[in-house]
Amino acid sequence: MTQNELIAQIKKKQSFLCIGLDVDLDKIPKHLLDSDDPMFEFNKAIIDATHHLVVAYKPNTAFYEAYGIKGWKSLQKTIHYLNDNYPEIFTIADAKRGDIGNTSTRYAKAFFEDLAFDSVTVAPYMGSDSVEPFLAFADKFTILLALTSNKGGLDFQGLESNENKVYEHVLKTAITWKNSDNLMFVVGATKADYFKDIREIVPNHFLLVPGIGAQGGNLQDVCKYGLTQNVGLLINSSRGIIYASNEKDFAQKAHDKALELQQEMKRILLKNFIV
Amino acid sequence: MTQNELIAQIKKKQSFLCIGLDVDLDKIPKHLLDSDDPMFEFNKAIIDATHHLVVAYKPNTAFYEAYGIKGWKSLQKTIHYLNDNYPEIFTIADAKRGDIGNTSTRYAKAFFEDLAFDSVTVAPYMGSDSVEPFLAFADKFTILLALTSNKGGLDFQGLESNENKVYEHVLKTAITWKNSDNLMFVVGATKADYFKDIREIVPNHFLLVPGIGAQGGNLQDVCKYGLTQNVGLLINSSRGIIYASNEKDFAQKAHDKALELQQEMKRILLKNFIV
Repeated sequence: MTQNELIAQIKKKQSFLCIGLDVDLDKIPKHLLDSDDPMFEFNKAIIDATHHLVVAYKPNTAFYEAYGIKGWKSLQKTIHYLNDNYPEIFTIADAKRGDIGNTSTRYAKAFFEDLAFDSVTVAPYMGSDSVEPFLAFADKFTILLALTSNKGGLDFQGLESNENKVYEHVLKTAITWKNSDNLMFVVGATKADYFKDIREIVPNHFLLVPGIGAQGGNLQDVCKYGLTQNVGLLINSSRGIIYASNEKDFAQKAHDKALELQQEMKRILLKNFIV
Repeated sequence: MTQNELIAQIKKKQSFLCIGLDVDLDKIPKHLLDSDDPMFEFNKAIIDATHHLVVAYKPNTAFYEAYGIKGWKSLQKTIHYLNDNYPEIFTIADAKRGDIGNTSTRYAKAFFEDLAFDSVTVAPYMGSDSVEPFLAFADKFTILLALTSNKGGLDFQGLESNENKVYEHVLKTAITWKNSDNLMFVVGATKADYFKDIREIVPNHFLLVPGIGAQGGNLQDVCKYGLTQNVGLLINSSRGIIYASNEKDFAQKAHDKALELQQEMKRILLKNFIV
């Protein structure tokens, strides 16, 4: 998918919502556990109920790997289902990979070719030659961790070096890399105060923003400085939507929560004359 | 496995060699491609020919993920084969994972429980609460990236902050975390000049050292400052051993290369009065 197609989808749906498909068998409705593939059945129901309200889905690979081969099969079925039925949706493998050059190419093939995701999250610690192999894939996006939403995020990302924090070095350096147009960045909603500075470094790149809802981040605060004329934000919510209910009405309740967020996004877009 | 069991194995075998099982179907001998599971057959032959010369094997997950479910099955068969036949061997999932707390626990379960590896490599960028969930598993080891062997390694790891490089902050901070006895660190052999300083920060922790051979690192240089009274080093070689030949004699040639390195290690251990 190209960035223009993503922007067109956002404007059409008046939404920049991403749903995190972090499936936990201990949390999904009990009646699904009798099916052959409860993780996929859960995802399918959530996707069917919410696809018109969102522009992206983001399965976190940890939740699938934890169940071994069975989990990988559920992940594979989920991405195939998305690509077959809702090809307009932007898909994110939240995998936080990264390795030396040749090995990163393997990860890129795993997520861009074998699983056919539109994008993958990547950790920057190993530097340029660990990320550039991902950037070499046309019409695929590499979403680099910059400033993460968790408490320990600042342990190293927040270190000061030559008047810049480490995460600022990551942003400033990454945009000099080859094919940096294929970059997006992860910035946690819990760090809303930082968005102004971040937008000075990356005024146009898309930011994937986790941490709304359960983690305490606020949509209005993020949009205040994060929003661009092309929207430039993908706001992720996982638990707040997919576990809104663990009864038979779970998909309907997920729809209702997604609709609430989409309506709030629509108001923000209208207020900012973006749609 | 406990650290004492690992040390006992090192002293018994007079080896601190780890072989990286980075299987590439384009590089393995052609005759294996006709078997049902060429990746596993290749690993099995390498393991059977070298297990008495090495103390650890390290499959890099990228090489398996690149082949999708089929690759994960090969990885699973490989780790089961190791645990069933050579339980004294220390096993490393070179996965470079790391995510927010609850999600890191999923990765830990994937590698420590579902696949039953002894250890996993983890990226530090997301800080304390992304790593501590791995450390909570008893008799399992978390091998944290500190200073990696690739050229881009210094892009962010080498930034200076308050008289310390970022990788030094990683080392100094990580050893204050809960269950830090379960830590080891990745330090590239290509950065041999740094071992003296690193040993001042972590005098006793095991270091996993990639970069010998193909990447240009040198065993003697690494041992000069890296070696401790309990050895404290696991030296990894991948391509230099497993692709020593791509003919029918590949396992024999891998054995010969591993033997060369083991003999060099034995001389170093004897010279330092360690065995």
